Amino acid sequence: MSTRVIEAAEIETMDKRFRANLINSVSGFKSANLLGSINKHGKTNLAIFNSVVHIGSNPPLLGFILRPTSVPRHSFENILETGYYTLNHVNDKIVEPAHQTSAKYPEGQSEFMATGLTEELLDGFPAPFVSESQIKIGLRFMEEIPIKINATRLVIGQIEMLILNEKYLAEDGSLDLMRAGSLAINGLDHYHQAVDLKKLPYARP
Amino acid sequence: MSTRVIEAAEIETMDKRFRANLINSVSGFKSANLLGSINKHGKTNLAIFNSVVHIGSNPPLLGFILRPTSVPRHSFENILETGYYTLNHVNDKIVEPAHQTSAKYPEGQSEFMATGLTEELLDGFPAPFVSESQIKIGLRFMEEIPIKINATRLVIGQIEMLILNEKYLAEDGSLDLMRAGSLAINGLDHYHQAVDLKKLPYARP
Repeated sequence: MSTRVIEAAEIETMDKRFRANLINSVSGFKSANLLGSINKHGKTNLAIFNSVVHIGSNPPLLGFILRPTSVPRHSFENILETGYYTLNHVNDKIVEPAHQTSAKYPEGQSEFMATGLTEELLDGFPAPFVSESQIKIGLRFMEEIPIKINATRLVIGQIEMLILNEKYLAEDGSLDLMRAGSLAINGLDHYHQAVDLKKLPYARP
Repeated sequence: MSTRVIEAAEIETMDKRFRANLINSVSGFKSANLLGSINKHGKTNLAIFNSVVHIGSNPPLLGFILRPTSVPRHSFENILETGYYTLNHVNDKIVEPAHQTSAKYPEGQSEFMATGLTEELLDGFPAPFVSESQIKIGLRFMEEIPIKINATRLVIGQIEMLILNEKYLAEDGSLDLMRAGSLAINGLDHYHQAVDLKKLPYARP
């Protein structure tokens, strides 16, 4: 085994893309979600996010990190306009169109149309879900928290609606993400399926 | 297929543990990291976190969510005392002792001693790494950002040091988390290994 120690000074002088790949994979596996939104003129938007994080269960809150210069800013503009958005798990059957939503399409073109993923509008929820996703979350925007150190934002929403296939819901409330085909992301572009290792009981001394 | 729609009112009235399991798994797969810290008297602490999130690559920043009432508060007290901490990927060979760090051990007992994981102290870095981990990150505390809506905090650190086996570092800078044995967590207690699905190129329209 050849141990490599990389210090701050070396990270600072790395090629930009090399550093982005390294730092994006060093945090471990990430979730893969499609964020669906719509503006006040009815134009939809769909963007892949790998930074969704659990904020709390009661009330049920999820957050994501918004970069200052990233494509998904349209998503955030729509969220501010309507107050609502959706998160939809990427699964093995839609990995290619899901990744493709990160392309910079011309202004005015919806990523739903461009990638072939299907908009699903449900009565009473003002943002589009992704029909092909097996686990869909409708959220109400709660707050944006500025992260001044690098001009990013933590965007927090409260879960208003869950839409899922009942067979993935276990008796204890947990979802079988593996059977649902939900993917994990390594870095920016490497998608993985999950295989079962171990479910462990509540830990006691 | 039997679609289940769960609305906000139903989530609110769920049994507490059922809701925690559901909301913790609905965000998708999470990273599994052990946070190592030490207080000014030299007592070490080790706690598992599933909320590590990428904040930025330049400067290299990672965040995690700190709950108000969780065991890992000792970790945060240590971080404030010394200004440093480590994150160490959980892998398939240490999943049981890693999960066991979440038990409430008596005051004064280090989770390193209690679980058998090995403290690794390196010259020039003031917090303990986990020897058995294949991907180890040394961080300097930068800031805590209060999330008022549920009294949690986003804790941000800058990467000062990476220690890894060179064979997991690809030419493009990304790490092969699958070969390194890094795990993904579903919910609070269900650990998964990753299998390769697809690495996709930078998306263009």
